Amino acid sequence: MAKEDKSGKLEALRHSASHIMAEAVQSLFPEAKFGIGPAIEDGFYYDFDLPGPLGVDDLPAIEARMREIIAANLPFSSEEISIDEANKLFADQPYKIELIKDLGSDKVTVYRQGKFTDLCRGPHVKNTGDVKAFKLISVAGAYWRGDEKRPMLQRIYGVAFTRSVDLEEHLKKLAEAAKRDHRKLGKELDLFSLHEEAGPGLAYWHPKGATVRQMIEDFWKLEHRRRGYDIVYSPHIAKVHLWETSGHWNFYRDNMYSPMEIDDIQYVIKPMNCPFHILMYKTQLRSYRNLPMRYAELGTVYRYERSGVLHGLARVRGFTQDDAHIFCRPDQIESEVKDVVELARFMMKSFGFDEYEMMLSTRPEKYTGTVESWDMATEALRNVLEQLKLDYKVDPGEGVFYGPKIDIKLKDALGRLWQGPTIQVDFQLPERFDVNYVAEDGREHRTVMIHRTVLGSMERFFACLTEHYAGAFPVWLAPVQAVLIPIADRHVEYASKLCDDMRSRDIRVQLDDRSERMNMKIREAQLNKIPYMLVVGDKELENGTVSVRLRNGEDLGSQDFSVFMQRVIKIIESRELQEL
Amino acid sequence: MAKEDKSGKLEALRHSASHIMAEAVQSLFPEAKFGIGPAIEDGFYYDFDLPGPLGVDDLPAIEARMREIIAANLPFSSEEISIDEANKLFADQPYKIELIKDLGSDKVTVYRQGKFTDLCRGPHVKNTGDVKAFKLISVAGAYWRGDEKRPMLQRIYGVAFTRSVDLEEHLKKLAEAAKRDHRKLGKELDLFSLHEEAGPGLAYWHPKGATVRQMIEDFWKLEHRRRGYDIVYSPHIAKVHLWETSGHWNFYRDNMYSPMEIDDIQYVIKPMNCPFHILMYKTQLRSYRNLPMRYAELGTVYRYERSGVLHGLARVRGFTQDDAHIFCRPDQIESEVKDVVELARFMMKSFGFDEYEMMLSTRPEKYTGTVESWDMATEALRNVLEQLKLDYKVDPGEGVFYGPKIDIKLKDALGRLWQGPTIQVDFQLPERFDVNYVAEDGREHRTVMIHRTVLGSMERFFACLTEHYAGAFPVWLAPVQAVLIPIADRHVEYASKLCDDMRSRDIRVQLDDRSERMNMKIREAQLNKIPYMLVVGDKELENGTVSVRLRNGEDLGSQDFSVFMQRVIKIIESRELQEL
Repeated sequence: MAKEDKSGKLEALRHSASHIMAEAVQSLFPEAKFGIGPAIEDGFYYDFDLPGPLGVDDLPAIEARMREIIAANLPFSSEEISIDEANKLFADQPYKIELIKDLGSDKVTVYRQGKFTDLCRGPHVKNTGDVKAFKLISVAGAYWRGDEKRPMLQRIYGVAFTRSVDLEEHLKKLAEAAKRDHRKLGKELDLFSLHEEAGPGLAYWHPKGATVRQMIEDFWKLEHRRRGYDIVYSPHIAKVHLWETSGHWNFYRDNMYSPMEIDDIQYVIKPMNCPFHILMYKTQLRSYRNLPMRYAELGTVYRYERSGVLHGLARVRGFTQDDAHIFCRPDQIESEVKDVVELARFMMKSFGFDEYEMMLSTRPEKYTGTVESWDMATEALRNVLEQLKLDYKVDPGEGVFYGPKIDIKLKDALGRLWQGPTIQVDFQLPERFDVNYVAEDGREHRTVMIHRTVLGSMERFFACLTEHYAGAFPVWLAPVQAVLIPIADRHVEYASKLCDDMRSRDIRVQLDDRSERMNMKIREAQLNKIPYMLVVGDKELENGTVSVRLRNGEDLGSQDFSVFMQRVIKIIESRELQEL
Repeated sequence: MAKEDKSGKLEALRHSASHIMAEAVQSLFPEAKFGIGPAIEDGFYYDFDLPGPLGVDDLPAIEARMREIIAANLPFSSEEISIDEANKLFADQPYKIELIKDLGSDKVTVYRQGKFTDLCRGPHVKNTGDVKAFKLISVAGAYWRGDEKRPMLQRIYGVAFTRSVDLEEHLKKLAEAAKRDHRKLGKELDLFSLHEEAGPGLAYWHPKGATVRQMIEDFWKLEHRRRGYDIVYSPHIAKVHLWETSGHWNFYRDNMYSPMEIDDIQYVIKPMNCPFHILMYKTQLRSYRNLPMRYAELGTVYRYERSGVLHGLARVRGFTQDDAHIFCRPDQIESEVKDVVELARFMMKSFGFDEYEMMLSTRPEKYTGTVESWDMATEALRNVLEQLKLDYKVDPGEGVFYGPKIDIKLKDALGRLWQGPTIQVDFQLPERFDVNYVAEDGREHRTVMIHRTVLGSMERFFACLTEHYAGAFPVWLAPVQAVLIPIADRHVEYASKLCDDMRSRDIRVQLDDRSERMNMKIREAQLNKIPYMLVVGDKELENGTVSVRLRNGEDLGSQDFSVFMQRVIKIIESRELQEL
């Protein structure tokens, strides 16, 4: 929406909604101290220091008060006042006083509507009545100025649009997104857990989530081996000295954990796998004939993230990258990048993502290496995108300091973008670690490294996949692929035999022989998003069939068991995305 | 050998050899200061403080001097002397003076032979001539009293036997063991590396070693799923608080790394997976009907080991346990342990280990839980071993404080024992974490945990496997399974086609199209322990055959390619241990 807001009208509208909300809060909680209240994508927020905690239950009252202010159609007016006047005006508003002080100018602008005055540069809509289509959404804690050492304020989020129809559409999308929220589904489907008491941002993969992950990993390894990658394993810790050599200790330290000591030497848990792969590369002298070498690893890394930005599995502190480093000659960059882009597209397609956005990021102001090598590498990346006839945007100057890169964002079922594959050319680490190969001229030349990931991390990709499919994973990924439901006790033996049959073919199947009603069992299997419900009664027992229902409620009726099982096996083996 | 040495004669012989070596060193290096020199399994050692470093090149001279002392057939004599006399006698031997002081008695015994006198309680052989069959083996650094803060002495190791024939047999075995040493083969076959500069005891699995590991892991996961285990993943770090709850922080801290800080809270890298699995178990109320639950994880743990005891992959600081925790009711212990023992035996057999030693360890003096629960669990373990008609020994009082256990040691091709599967019943952690299930009576009862591993760790098991097979891994594990060797350039196209054919079936195959002689290529493939060498020339090209050679040198002659490939696929899929 923000993109369409060329004139800034929508932003003014949202910003005004924020002020109206502040006035409503002021009238309901006269002791309220005010932080800041900007417009954001789709809406607005305001941070308040209040005597007691707010919950979503409090939002209707605030909304109602806002509607009164809107109905009154009060004008927004602005005024420039001196610092002294401002300090008097906001004397009982410590956060505003702090902001005024930090502005460091002689005069400030204030905006007023009704009984509310705010330190604000505007612009705003003309009258409160211009804000029509809005809704308050949620309450969250937010440190004053994002600083964990300052007071925790209460932030109320709202959304606002010009037209009610847009608001409704947006709310519908929010509701759908909420239903698909991987944190919610993660609990409901028993996929994973997080344990604040053992450390926030660290994922525990329960049997069902871990099954999906293992299937992804198995597929990933198979496909990488087929495409000439070598799988490797490296440790999770290394001496600080290694990170000094790599440059991470200087340039990336804020994202790294504090060191631990072993035999009086400092070690740190790895935020990246690259230096480890370099050490392996360097155990032998490599010839131009050995290149490219492609080291792939499902490497678990740990990076510090502020606890405020952690979000389910989508943003965590420990995650498993589907990482690889390609060691190649400069003349191999293009063909290697091309293979990576094709692998990435193949993987995306295999998981049901047909749409994505691609971005080519070029040389930033601060960079290492020569302009020539940058031009050569950037040209190679561009050539690949052109050759493959892919739509892409160029983000000038947004490459990392060590080389240009391609980023791919996946579009999920709700049209939301998720960070996916990344391909980065690197001239920097080979310099720092003196990574070479012996060329045809018999002399050592600098090797080029390509860092790449095609899923990003198992955690984020799994979160994305869960939301994309609303937990109804494709059959080959489904934690439980089929459930056998005997109608009565006399059908249990037959059901159990079929269950064993399927299990011996490594199909993940359950037998639901509880003494519950069939419809209740079917309902439960549907809630658990199990692809196939195989009901067996007298007729099925007699004919060697199963009565098949899909999780979407579709009833496929009686199917010959052997034929059906063969079909399911084919669907699993070929990783089809449809149930039948 | 030690076991057969009932009278202690062999020990006296080896101890005497140590004194003879000390005398030889004294005569060659008059400035030598002496540490200690005991008998050990198969031989003896002595620690010396010498002006310069010793190497294996110095051993023949010392051996020659020892032979002179032996030829002189000098008597060993002992004498009890006062502390004052001892202090005078050893005035220029600071290590002996320290030992005398620490003995804290009025009198000490000394033994003499020829010109050498040592502080020693004996016993010794009668004359130096009694020591006949001996050999000096190696030199290593050893801290005085094993303390890294004390001086580093030089330790010379030797072996000694009563009969020459035993010595020769032992030396032959040592030579064979040296050839199979996984550290040596690890380099030669490019399986893995260790990097002192990034941290000792941390393994880097190169493509070839990692392939073997992945095949082991894939098999392990498949077999565990088939037997009702659930695979899970847990983080590598947790707050210190979790380890306080588990008791590790108090009882196991010497083996744990120092903490790191995140948001002012201390975290530590995990030495064990147990507490993580417990947290997952506890995310829901579990019913007696849910049990047993079996959480399996290839979990990488980090434990502090002194750098002196690190040994290739066999003893490391970071290793991946093939871990599992079974949560069960007390009445399920026996059947669960039985299944684990059977799984362990199946795994051992699958990897070619047919012989092992089993040990049942019972209640120690210090224990937690009740005598009744110990008796019940110990009885369950014993019943399993009896039912399965397995040979086992009882190690009374050697259980861990939290429950009894079964240990299994594998016997490798040279008859050496390796620590393998372990099964431990645990009453302790369920208490500490309040781990319960709701029983049929509707009330909460304490869950029992069984800790178990069937391979031990990927690192140690891989070291064992490498030495067992001398690097010639069974086909299904072999990093490269076949190499295609075209005789001349005109055969490359055909060879390449066959190579693609095999690769498309996921057989790990290489094409050796270098312009080298065929015999040289075969020799190299044999050195690389590649199971199948497929030579193709005119005849093969014409008939659609390959000429097959095995790595042991056996020539199988011409084989129809398709038939041969089918056979190889069957061997791989059924994990046969023989090539054909």
